[in-house]
Amino acid sequence: MEYLIHCGYLVPMTNNKILKDYCVVTEDDRIIDIAPYEKARGKYRGYEIIDATDSIVLPGLVNLHTHAAMSILRGYADDLPLHIWLKEKIWPLEAKLTPRDIYYGAVLAAAESALMGTTVINTMYHYTDPELNEANAISNVGLRAVVGHVCFSWRKEDDRRCIDSLVKKWHGGKNGLVKVSIDPHSPYTVDPDYLKELRIITDEYNERYLEKGIITYHIHVAETKDEAKMIEEAFKVKVDRGIFTYLDSLNILKDDTVAAHCIWLSKDDIAILSKRKVSVAHNPVSNLKLASGIAPIPELTKNGINVGLGTDSACSNNSLDMFETMKLAALLHKGINGDPTLLPAWEVLRMATINGVKALKWDKELGTIEIGKKADLIAIQYKGKPHLSPIYDPMSHLVYAVRSLDVKYVIVNGNLIVEAGKLKTINLSDILDKVNKIKEELLSR
Amino acid sequence: MEYLIHCGYLVPMTNNKILKDYCVVTEDDRIIDIAPYEKARGKYRGYEIIDATDSIVLPGLVNLHTHAAMSILRGYADDLPLHIWLKEKIWPLEAKLTPRDIYYGAVLAAAESALMGTTVINTMYHYTDPELNEANAISNVGLRAVVGHVCFSWRKEDDRRCIDSLVKKWHGGKNGLVKVSIDPHSPYTVDPDYLKELRIITDEYNERYLEKGIITYHIHVAETKDEAKMIEEAFKVKVDRGIFTYLDSLNILKDDTVAAHCIWLSKDDIAILSKRKVSVAHNPVSNLKLASGIAPIPELTKNGINVGLGTDSACSNNSLDMFETMKLAALLHKGINGDPTLLPAWEVLRMATINGVKALKWDKELGTIEIGKKADLIAIQYKGKPHLSPIYDPMSHLVYAVRSLDVKYVIVNGNLIVEAGKLKTINLSDILDKVNKIKEELLSR
Repeated sequence: MEYLIHCGYLVPMTNNKILKDYCVVTEDDRIIDIAPYEKARGKYRGYEIIDATDSIVLPGLVNLHTHAAMSILRGYADDLPLHIWLKEKIWPLEAKLTPRDIYYGAVLAAAESALMGTTVINTMYHYTDPELNEANAISNVGLRAVVGHVCFSWRKEDDRRCIDSLVKKWHGGKNGLVKVSIDPHSPYTVDPDYLKELRIITDEYNERYLEKGIITYHIHVAETKDEAKMIEEAFKVKVDRGIFTYLDSLNILKDDTVAAHCIWLSKDDIAILSKRKVSVAHNPVSNLKLASGIAPIPELTKNGINVGLGTDSACSNNSLDMFETMKLAALLHKGINGDPTLLPAWEVLRMATINGVKALKWDKELGTIEIGKKADLIAIQYKGKPHLSPIYDPMSHLVYAVRSLDVKYVIVNGNLIVEAGKLKTINLSDILDKVNKIKEELLSR
Repeated sequence: MEYLIHCGYLVPMTNNKILKDYCVVTEDDRIIDIAPYEKARGKYRGYEIIDATDSIVLPGLVNLHTHAAMSILRGYADDLPLHIWLKEKIWPLEAKLTPRDIYYGAVLAAAESALMGTTVINTMYHYTDPELNEANAISNVGLRAVVGHVCFSWRKEDDRRCIDSLVKKWHGGKNGLVKVSIDPHSPYTVDPDYLKELRIITDEYNERYLEKGIITYHIHVAETKDEAKMIEEAFKVKVDRGIFTYLDSLNILKDDTVAAHCIWLSKDDIAILSKRKVSVAHNPVSNLKLASGIAPIPELTKNGINVGLGTDSACSNNSLDMFETMKLAALLHKGINGDPTLLPAWEVLRMATINGVKALKWDKELGTIEIGKKADLIAIQYKGKPHLSPIYDPMSHLVYAVRSLDVKYVIVNGNLIVEAGKLKTINLSDILDKVNKIKEELLSR
């Protein structure tokens, strides 16, 4: 398709400038021009016009850490002590999930995400079936996905089979909508030898399949205060200078590493994150809800560390709303540090767009609205909305006032997947019927 | 009007029970019955049916602290040090506001609030005109308002005139939609004698006008860390044991007192809040955004203190979204205190409904869905929404997953003011045109 997207405001995120009454022109999957409306309308006759003159147009949002399929368990249990929540509620229900449930859970997550303006989902879950999996689910909704199979020491053999199938079948799949990652669950559930083995596997795949995109190394790190102790007890190793210091001693950290949470860090850890160019996925909603703690984000960014934003799963959030996550990130670090100038709107918008794809090694193609990049963009309707009126500064509104349901258009890879707030790619009502049936079955299984 | 509201789920907030497939029956401004659909549909033939079978129905939300008119300045300035934000940005623009601007700013706030499920707004601002004011504006949109005129030591004469006009003209006005309050701005801007005088005035009005509802005493307290010092310097008094300890020494605290913020409290202060039955308006979004600090809410509730929730103004939020405020309150105190069991969904919903009207001395009429109470209720559409699917527990969804724009119906005082997500009481597009014109004028004045 060829689109002429006429924008009320355009926020390309290449710098902190905002363009008024500009057009973004797309052909197939690419952005081919960005020009004032008066100029573009003459030049691109016959292109389908998308009227976003009532909207703010920006790059699609990037959810840098979630477990998409867990949306099927959304709101099943809350407000409980962590070990009861996990051991008595989440794990028993998760154990009942079939590949079909995982597939529909991920479709549900992708549908929610698309309607809320997220165009890239970085998800870690169990890959157990070549078709009924998150990669297929998310790309069927029309979104981009980076999909990993979560690895644990207790199931190495299974993991290796799953990883190999995932990489061979899905890396670069669905017209490039899908990339894969190698996902050791965490340093306390994956032994040091296996962490190293997964690093070697990652590097080997990246040599073999580089033309399909870089495979990232996605891991939870330092989510809870007692993690260092848990690692020491599980693997009889020393973690007294910090968890990243321990991981770096294994030679596994590189600029393709996406570390989720990063709450409990030593000074040495921060130096290593910076030196190894590890990216951090900050998940403020989940971290507060589970009472895990608060990641030292301003200190990380001050040290030049790339920070993106994630929602974590719908079990610990309970939504996949990146607008909510942006606002909370902007608020929380101001409040905690007593400094209202921290994480200004522009910086938070970068975290949710270009920083996210930088972490996923996808920033050459995505994350900003630029000629030659892939056409991934969203339009937020502001006109006619009291909660977005008046408008002094669109950037401020995007972080502090826009609600996720203000999303009007979503374009991914040049395809219009949300139009006037409706999802065009799947039959939503069929999917929700399936999801409700799965819920009933899960409770009675 | 007579309505038969057929609810998918009904959350009456009288206890933590949820009723399925029940009806709420209203006549004029009252709830006259609550019954299973099968029973109600035969008994109330001819009543207009509101089909909320796709929705969760609950009492309208209560915004316990805001400055409604300031919505006209939404997003004008953010991410700045407090004194620059106030002195160089907000105050200079505020100084330019005319009564007309205040009126339309408050209409804007009320329109936003109604569409987001808020039915009661407790607002403190400048009352300068008998018609062009917040009381008229908010009640014209069809919402309830508790409206105060903010009092400062430097303008006592003006204040007294404004208060007297406000009480006589607006207390109990618009069919009881409006109540008024007496609003000393804060202990650092209002001298001790004036604080006492305003307490006496409140008590006198309450003797004279009791049949129109109780007039509350609404004040900002302990918002910033240096407030005690500011009071000491301004009025040559001792505030070394806490600000409430100081206020109590003036004999001004009663159970009609609504204290906004309450962040920096001593042990003695908490004991006094409890003893004097002062209600607290917690504003977590604003408190984080301005980096004011975090109120010790779990400690307050543990001490039996009534806590409601507020948004503060659209200048420090930048929205009036009580669903966002509920979720943030639920998350923040878990995260800060390292305890995921704090502020569970049910408690937070109470804060946003019955606790709010308890603070406003309006809980005999409002805050729960009960036979004999006023018909103030909202319906949240969950069916057809991926972000609200599946549904294990409607209470969890209301706090953790519902977005404010999921509001489908709003009924206040028996009147249907929002239907299918559209505001019926005003011409929204005319109002937004006015608001945009005022913005342009403000910037060029």
